Amino acid sequence: MLPQIALTMGDVAGVGPEVLVRAWHDGRLCDWCRPIVFGNVNILRRAIEAVRLPLRVAAVDRLDQAQPAADCLPCWDPNATDLDQVPVGVNDPRAGRAAFDWLVAAAKAALARQVDAIATAPLSKAALHLAGLNYPGHTEILAEICGVRDFAMMLYLPGTALSDRLPQGLGVAHTTLHTSIRSVPELLTRGRILETIGLLDTFLGSLGIAHPRIGVCALNPHAGEEGLFGDEEAVVIRPAVTEAVQAGVAAAGPYPADSVFQRAVAGEFDGVVAMYHDQGHIALKLLGMRRAVNVTLGLPIVRTSPSHGTAFDIAWTGKAQADGMIEAIRVATTLATQRFGERPA
Amino acid sequence: MLPQIALTMGDVAGVGPEVLVRAWHDGRLCDWCRPIVFGNVNILRRAIEAVRLPLRVAAVDRLDQAQPAADCLPCWDPNATDLDQVPVGVNDPRAGRAAFDWLVAAAKAALARQVDAIATAPLSKAALHLAGLNYPGHTEILAEICGVRDFAMMLYLPGTALSDRLPQGLGVAHTTLHTSIRSVPELLTRGRILETIGLLDTFLGSLGIAHPRIGVCALNPHAGEEGLFGDEEAVVIRPAVTEAVQAGVAAAGPYPADSVFQRAVAGEFDGVVAMYHDQGHIALKLLGMRRAVNVTLGLPIVRTSPSHGTAFDIAWTGKAQADGMIEAIRVATTLATQRFGERPA
Repeated sequence: MLPQIALTMGDVAGVGPEVLVRAWHDGRLCDWCRPIVFGNVNILRRAIEAVRLPLRVAAVDRLDQAQPAADCLPCWDPNATDLDQVPVGVNDPRAGRAAFDWLVAAAKAALARQVDAIATAPLSKAALHLAGLNYPGHTEILAEICGVRDFAMMLYLPGTALSDRLPQGLGVAHTTLHTSIRSVPELLTRGRILETIGLLDTFLGSLGIAHPRIGVCALNPHAGEEGLFGDEEAVVIRPAVTEAVQAGVAAAGPYPADSVFQRAVAGEFDGVVAMYHDQGHIALKLLGMRRAVNVTLGLPIVRTSPSHGTAFDIAWTGKAQADGMIEAIRVATTLATQRFGERPA
Repeated sequence: MLPQIALTMGDVAGVGPEVLVRAWHDGRLCDWCRPIVFGNVNILRRAIEAVRLPLRVAAVDRLDQAQPAADCLPCWDPNATDLDQVPVGVNDPRAGRAAFDWLVAAAKAALARQVDAIATAPLSKAALHLAGLNYPGHTEILAEICGVRDFAMMLYLPGTALSDRLPQGLGVAHTTLHTSIRSVPELLTRGRILETIGLLDTFLGSLGIAHPRIGVCALNPHAGEEGLFGDEEAVVIRPAVTEAVQAGVAAAGPYPADSVFQRAVAGEFDGVVAMYHDQGHIALKLLGMRRAVNVTLGLPIVRTSPSHGTAFDIAWTGKAQADGMIEAIRVATTLATQRFGERPA
C-alpha cells in the first residue's frame, strides 16, 4: 500500500492551486503515493480550468474514501469555507484563514496517522496576519500543533538533482529563519546551534547515512577573519561544534559560508548548518533551482514543501511551474516510507 | 602593443606564488598582455621548483625593461626584502609587510600609467595586522592609495563562464564588505546604497551595456515580508532604488536575495547590488566556482583578483588551482583595453 500524502492548497490567491494541478498532471504522483488535496473544491476546479488540463476533482468527506487516480484529484475541505470571492494576487484574510485551517487539519491527520506525510503549497504570512494569525510561517505553526520546541527548517536537494558525489542529496538546516538580519546575532546561541546540528544529524541518519558529515557555516565574512569582523565564531559557533563532536557527531567548522557549499557539493559534507535564512537559501536555490525542497526537522510527522512562495505577481496566469511541488511530494513519499523520525536510537 | 599588467605576489606563505606560476604555465597570458610579477625573485623560483614547471625568472630593475615570454617571468621587487626564512602556511609579519609593499608599488605604477592594470594574488589580513598594517583587505588599501572615498568591491563572472543570456557576464557589487553581520544594518545608508548602484552602473556601462539593468538585494529574508522581519527595505533600500531611478539608472528592488541571482542568470539583470559580503559571494562563487573575479569599482586604476584567499591549509602543496588567477588577468586585460573609467560621461 502506497503512503497517503496530504497536499495542502496554501493561499488560494497565490500559485498553490495551479501548482497542485500541474504537479498532478505530471502523472507520477499516483505511482509514488496516494495523494489527497486538503483545499477548496471550487478553487481546485477553477485552477484546472485555468491551466486547461484534462483532470477532475472528487470531493471526499472522509480521508479513507479518497481514490486518487491519474485524472482525478480527491479533495477534502474540513471547514468548507466559501472562497469564491477571494481576489487573485493580493493578501486576503479569508485566504489566510483557509490556508491555516487546511494546514492544521493536515498536521492533525498526520499526528493521528490518518495520512503518512504532508506536502504544503505556499501560504502568505501577510494574509495570515490579516486573519489575526500571527505566525511567521508554516514551520512555526506546525511546531506549535505538534507541541515541539526543538525544530528547524531544512532545505533539501535530492541526490538526483545534485552531484553524483552526494547520492543521498544535500540538506541545509537553518539555525535561525524568519527573522531580521539585525536580530540574528542575538538569536544565535550555543544551545540553538547545537540543537540544529543534532536535528540535521538525525535527519541525515534517517536517510541511511551512517556517520553524516556536517559542515557548519560561520556567521561573518571569512568566518570573522580571526576575530577581525565579529566574534560569534569564537564565542558561540565553535563551542557548539566542539560540543557536537564530543557527543559523537561528525560536525566541523565554522567555515566561511562562501565556500562551504562548494565543499559539500564536492563530497566533503552530507549536510550544512546555516546561521540564517538567506545564507542557506541563496546557496541551495542556486544549486537546485526550482528543485530544492523544504523539510521541517524535529516534528513527529513528515512535512515537505517547495521552496518557492505564493508568487502573487504571476498567480493564476498559468506561468507557475510545478517542479518544486513534484519534488516536495517525491521527498515526502521517500521520508514517509523510511518512517523518518522513527528509526531506533 | 599589449597592455602591461602588474601581478602582485600576495602573501608568500599562501598560494599566491604557485598560483602565479601555474597561471603563467597555462600559456595564454602573454597572448593577452605583457604581465610582470611584483614579488620576490627567490620565492618565485622556489614556487617554480615546487610545482615542477619548465619556467624561469628574470629579475628586472625597471618596469620598461620587462620582456615576458611563455617560459620566462619578469619579476620586479622594489624593496627586495629577504623572505627566505618565512614559514609556509602561517601568518608572518614579514610576509604581510612584503605583500603590502608590492601592492602599493603596483598601485602607484598604475596611477603613473607605467602599468595598465593590476591583478593581485591573495594576501592575509591577519599577516597585515601582525605587520602593524590595520586594513581589512586589498580594496581598502587601494582606495587609500588612490585617494578615493566612494568605492565598492565587485565580484564579476565573465560571460564565458555564465549563461548565454548574459554575454557581458554578471557583476555583483557589495554595499558593505569586510565587516561583521552585526554591524551591517547600521552601515547600510541610503547614500551608500545609491553610491554602490552608481558604481556598478558605471562599470556595466564601461562594458558597453547601454542601459544596465540592476537588481538590488533586500537585506532581510523574503525582503522583510512587508515589514514583518526588519524595516531596512522600506527605510533605506527602497528610497535608494527610487533615487537611482530618478537619476536615470535602470535599478529595481529590493528583491529577496534567494531569488534575485537566478533572475539575473535568466537574463533579467546585468548586475546585482548585494547588501553584505556573503550575500554576493555565496551566489557568485556557486555560479562561477573558481572563475569569479574580484574587481574594485570606483578606482582610477584597473584592479582585479581571483576570489579565493591565501588557502594556508593547502599552500605550497601543489594543490592550488590557477583558474581564478587566469580569469583575473584576462578580465584585467579586457578592462585595461577598454580603458575602464575613462569612457566619456
